[in-house]
Amino acid sequence: MSKYDVKINPIVGTETTVLGLVGETQSVDIHKLRSMDIVEKVIRVQEPYKKANRAFHPQDTIVEVQNRKIGEGHFSVMAGPCSVESEEQLTGIAKAVQASGAAFLRGGAFKPRTSPYAFQGLGPAGLELLIKAKIETGLPIVTEVMDLSQLSAFDDVDIIQVGARNMQNFTLLKELGRLRKPILLKRGMSATMRELLMAAEYIMAGGNEQIILCERGIRTFEPATRNTLDISAIPVLKRQTHLPIIVDPSHAAGLSWAVEALSKAALAVGADGLMVEVHNDPQKALCDGDQALTPEAFDHMMSELKRYAKLENKNI
Amino acid sequence: MSKYDVKINPIVGTETTVLGLVGETQSVDIHKLRSMDIVEKVIRVQEPYKKANRAFHPQDTIVEVQNRKIGEGHFSVMAGPCSVESEEQLTGIAKAVQASGAAFLRGGAFKPRTSPYAFQGLGPAGLELLIKAKIETGLPIVTEVMDLSQLSAFDDVDIIQVGARNMQNFTLLKELGRLRKPILLKRGMSATMRELLMAAEYIMAGGNEQIILCERGIRTFEPATRNTLDISAIPVLKRQTHLPIIVDPSHAAGLSWAVEALSKAALAVGADGLMVEVHNDPQKALCDGDQALTPEAFDHMMSELKRYAKLENKNI
Amino acid sequence: MSKYDVKINPIVGTETTVLGLVGETQSVDIHKLRSMDIVEKVIRVQEPYKKANRAFHPQDTIVEVQNRKIGEGHFSVMAGPCSVESEEQLTGIAKAVQASGAAFLRGGAFKPRTSPYAFQGLGPAGLELLIKAKIETGLPIVTEVMDLSQLSAFDDVDIIQVGARNMQNFTLLKELGRLRKPILLKRGMSATMRELLMAAEYIMAGGNEQIILCERGIRTFEPATRNTLDISAIPVLKRQTHLPIIVDPSHAAGLSWAVEALSKAALAVGADGLMVEVHNDPQKALCDGDQALTPEAFDHMMSELKRYAKLENKNI
Amino acid sequence: MSKYDVKINPIVGTETTVLGLVGETQSVDIHKLRSMDIVEKVIRVQEPYKKANRAFHPQDTIVEVQNRKIGEGHFSVMAGPCSVESEEQLTGIAKAVQASGAAFLRGGAFKPRTSPYAFQGLGPAGLELLIKAKIETGLPIVTEVMDLSQLSAFDDVDIIQVGARNMQNFTLLKELGRLRKPILLKRGMSATMRELLMAAEYIMAGGNEQIILCERGIRTFEPATRNTLDISAIPVLKRQTHLPIIVDPSHAAGLSWAVEALSKAALAVGADGLMVEVHNDPQKALCDGDQALTPEAFDHMMSELKRYAKLENKNI
Repeated sequence: MSKYDVKINPIVGTETTVLGLVGETQSVDIHKLRSMDIVEKVIRVQEPYKKANRAFHPQDTIVEVQNRKIGEGHFSVMAGPCSVESEEQLTGIAKAVQASGAAFLRGGAFKPRTSPYAFQGLGPAGLELLIKAKIETGLPIVTEVMDLSQLSAFDDVDIIQVGARNMQNFTLLKELGRLRKPILLKRGMSATMRELLMAAEYIMAGGNEQIILCERGIRTFEPATRNTLDISAIPVLKRQTHLPIIVDPSHAAGLSWAVEALSKAALAVGADGLMVEVHNDPQKALCDGDQALTPEAFDHMMSELKRYAKLENKNI
Repeated sequence: MSKYDVKINPIVGTETTVLGLVGETQSVDIHKLRSMDIVEKVIRVQEPYKKANRAFHPQDTIVEVQNRKIGEGHFSVMAGPCSVESEEQLTGIAKAVQASGAAFLRGGAFKPRTSPYAFQGLGPAGLELLIKAKIETGLPIVTEVMDLSQLSAFDDVDIIQVGARNMQNFTLLKELGRLRKPILLKRGMSATMRELLMAAEYIMAGGNEQIILCERGIRTFEPATRNTLDISAIPVLKRQTHLPIIVDPSHAAGLSWAVEALSKAALAVGADGLMVEVHNDPQKALCDGDQALTPEAFDHMMSELKRYAKLENKNI
Repeated sequence: MSKYDVKINPIVGTETTVLGLVGETQSVDIHKLRSMDIVEKVIRVQEPYKKANRAFHPQDTIVEVQNRKIGEGHFSVMAGPCSVESEEQLTGIAKAVQASGAAFLRGGAFKPRTSPYAFQGLGPAGLELLIKAKIETGLPIVTEVMDLSQLSAFDDVDIIQVGARNMQNFTLLKELGRLRKPILLKRGMSATMRELLMAAEYIMAGGNEQIILCERGIRTFEPATRNTLDISAIPVLKRQTHLPIIVDPSHAAGLSWAVEALSKAALAVGADGLMVEVHNDPQKALCDGDQALTPEAFDHMMSELKRYAKLENKNI
Repeated sequence: MSKYDVKINPIVGTETTVLGLVGETQSVDIHKLRSMDIVEKVIRVQEPYKKANRAFHPQDTIVEVQNRKIGEGHFSVMAGPCSVESEEQLTGIAKAVQASGAAFLRGGAFKPRTSPYAFQGLGPAGLELLIKAKIETGLPIVTEVMDLSQLSAFDDVDIIQVGARNMQNFTLLKELGRLRKPILLKRGMSATMRELLMAAEYIMAGGNEQIILCERGIRTFEPATRNTLDISAIPVLKRQTHLPIIVDPSHAAGLSWAVEALSKAALAVGADGLMVEVHNDPQKALCDGDQALTPEAFDHMMSELKRYAKLENKNI
């Protein structure tokens, strides 16, 4: 294989011969090998991501945002409405979640909606309301970018969120790699953990290594929940990568009454934080009202989480 | 619909007419209605299970086995080897898990194995070893029945387990309905929560209402874990049924190093207990060695779980 | 590895060492290797089934039933009602499907139903009606066994069907391995192709090699169809095994109006036959009426399939 | 419900009351209703898409491109390499597939690749090579846009492809709705048929109704194929929408030797065409070599398909 910097080690069996490739195998195109008639199967032994790989970077990455740390020893809660609706709504919720112990304000300005006839978010005006709420409360803000063309408006956003549907929007990921700003990368609805890490690798390959991964449920055959929260992804990803990982229990189940239980499970399993939907009046929410907590329910949850955090010596 | 004891309520829209059926709709065959040309869709509004339904039985069911309670206020840990291998092995493990706080001894005598060439369990001899270990330690025993024909040998077994592959072995379920003995019913690999409850209903319809449900991971596209632990199933099932629910973190992930984290999550989310694989020498285990805890790791996990149980006011 | 008859070939890389095992690897327990601390991953290169493997048995297996061949060069259609309801119903349907070109009569006597409150089949009386219909029409019969305890009543059944829910009922499979009678083995709802072949291997290990595989749809996230017909399984399985493979389009989609299109696709993709539900009055069918064809629709389908079969030089 | 233009029809049962809503229910937010404490479940009876809905537009849509028709009565084959590599490669393949009967040339200039270290496509230079090949052969071209920012370079592209990963890139879909050019919309890896139709609705809501849907396999638990071709989606979608639907057998299975069989199944099941990968030298292909046909294999497949097309009275 003169083209690649690899050595070949043959293992000869009676019915099959295995060729072991050693060296710079990351550059080897697995599909090309597989296309050869004499090749029956090609199996990759090492992971194809480098910068996100704990094997090459054993220490946990801690993402810092305005003196708040995400990762090792901290349990960071990002809370707020699914979509920004008005200044009054947003500031009210922001103050409430801050009082209960949230460290970040989340809220959607650009909203990916399945139906073109559904409310699509306030757009740039929504971003402005988020920034106002940030000034008033001091809470750093997290909000989703849906397209490259919106990025210029994100200068004052503290953490830029990439939604599940955009996890493999590679053009966007590359551009985010050029920034020096934390990125919250949500797992795609049917993305494997490896694909999530490859998406992180896209951003990291550009030099931006401040990435927070987010498990938000995967698509399965089970209709009783909106998605299936893959709780095992937390310990498995922790072993494979040094990046911090949070959980979104609101989208995972799509059931507001299950959020507290799932949040406790997330803390117990080792997650570094949460992203939770809170709305002052879920029944009037312009999106996803059925999965939002009221400020009261959020406050109850936070007091429970604080008891759990003590057990794990984590700051909340 | 003279044939059924239901009344029909029409709702007339401009493009569609909806017929609402009220009454004994459990006896209505949804497939039959759907087969009529003029019917486009049939949707069931109420759940088709009755005895397992919390709506008709609001109080939690508590299963009692030799003065040990499973359900409300208790966190019951069932631990032991995947398969019973020898008296020495089994008694050794039984004493170890008992010392760490397990309330039940689990162990497989009849083993469902994917390959006909793999170790198939000791069979009746395995059951005898379980009973010996029970006599020696006082731990009630839990073990799997794979077929009706084996049932006669289960007289001294305290809890009879129905494995995931048998969750819809209806002939077996009906027979178990005739017993008056606790049944541990594992969720099938691709069974919905509703199907799990219907399987419980099969047993309950026969009059045996001592059922413990067990979430053990479902099959999804994710290859990093053996199955995907559906942690949300615990709060969702708790709302739908009064039966106790435990979690099997060993089969769920198939990764021994993830079992402790997943067990803490199970307790935090509200499960009533665990079923965990423990082996004195996992590398020599005759089955599933990669998911078994050593007695030392199990002991560490139990001490962690006890701290968590206190937070929830549960006995372990 | 003195315990196993294998040789070890090390491949040393800079970060990882791969050990290639050659020889009788079918006896090696992959889980045991994985449980060792120094082992990160274990990957099987060769398939773990032997008797079902085309690599060791290149020629197609042809299953013969009363001078009718299933396999190479034949497209065998098995048709009949979901469940046997009465002599009149069954004989009527049997004659109709025979006139249209079906080679086998299918019909359920023992019925696996999700709900204990649904019609459970006529049982032994249903088997008798099937045998009567066989005598009257000459059509060999195919019907499902749900449990070992029913087997004694299957003496006059020509092909014994193992349903999807029983694909991994290993006790049953072993018993069927002792028979010398064709077995129709349906793929489990969430069984991989490899698991299907391992289930066939269970029967073949007992000496019964007359197995017909049946693809009947797998469980996925898509709710528009009852299951997702995995049409690619036909060419993939054909490459891996020498056993004949048929398709059940009725259960796959659960939509009678889609059966003809799916049946044509099954023939075109290379399947060896079909198993189709036909009912004289689907709206009154005691089970699955929404997926049954009327005899008229079946006749139309058969005339279409005959045109397709000519293109592929297959007998119908 | 004064806010919405709907009427409420109550159906009162003994345990549950069902409220039937009739009228402009497309504007009703299902999540909001579900968030009310007294509401247990909300079920939508009618489909939420309008313009893509066959109920409101019974006639098949035929997409015309340079006098070539896609839809009713035509079986359109789009063939070419996964990625454009060089003028020589592309023109060579274009002439070959044209000679065999392909009606469109496909080829990737912008390539979505899982790894940032893999070949990312030639970009604008690739588009130029496609246009050259179009001039030389007269074949209209189909190629993928990955991001809004690339759209300006697509003026001479005949059909713009939206890839599976971008099916819910709503910003992009809206922009494509402003064009008056055919869009090939691929189904997302884990998108339901309804979501696919909602994505089409996004484009159609903008006024562009020339949409071709493409089934390319969905993600399931089965590892033997790259994806699971959902062949039933063709008849089901045909019933729900008037838009033409083609199949991509190359991505569906990821196995070049299965492409011919799957293509015949696609024609037999009622698809309006195919999108197939062809490469002059698959072993040297810069991407996905293992799923590409050689020109010889493609020619063989086309001659088979022509025989099948005759049976269905379709032009190829």
